Amino acid sequence: MGLLDYFRASRSKKGSAVVARERLQILVAHDRAERDRPSYLPKLQEELIAVISKYVKIDRSKVSVNLERGDRQDILELNIVLSEDTVPSR
Amino acid sequence: MGLLDYFRASRSKKGSAVVARERLQILVAHDRAERDRPSYLPKLQEELIAVISKYVKIDRSKVSVNLERGDRQDILELNIVLSEDTVPSR
Repeated sequence: MGLLDYFRASRSKKGSAVVARERLQILVAHDRAERDRPSYLPKLQEELIAVISKYVKIDRSKVSVNLERGDRQDILELNIVLSEDTVPSR
Repeated sequence: MGLLDYFRASRSKKGSAVVARERLQILVAHDRAERDRPSYLPKLQEELIAVISKYVKIDRSKVSVNLERGDRQDILELNIVLSEDTVPSR
């Protein structure tokens, strides 16, 4: 798929200069058949973070959120820098 | 961020030929500082679908999953074609 190609390309460009750090990037794109329907992505965002927190320790101050709303497409992007210790306390 | 640029570019290329259909695309990329740590993305995948099902009606047969594992990065991609009636039964 196109998104995977994009990731592969951006990886190979960086080559050996990649900084070793824990990072999680989440992208949700919703293509709508009808215009101007209310978006559920803002609500979804909180639930996504809650789900992911089960697997990795997330510092909320390290989460950057980008929400783009268009006529036919909404895109939610979350960029999360993970703690050194990424195992959540259970 | 790069991902949003990619989405914008792929949108504008398609122009007016975009088919109006409901579609949800989810991408989770995890950059690891250490190599070969076990991935939680397969487990995360089921939970993501469960969370999203609260907002849109998902037919499991319309979900395609792509999981790529690399030394330093795992990528989980979900492509979901949504039903005509996208409001979930509550």
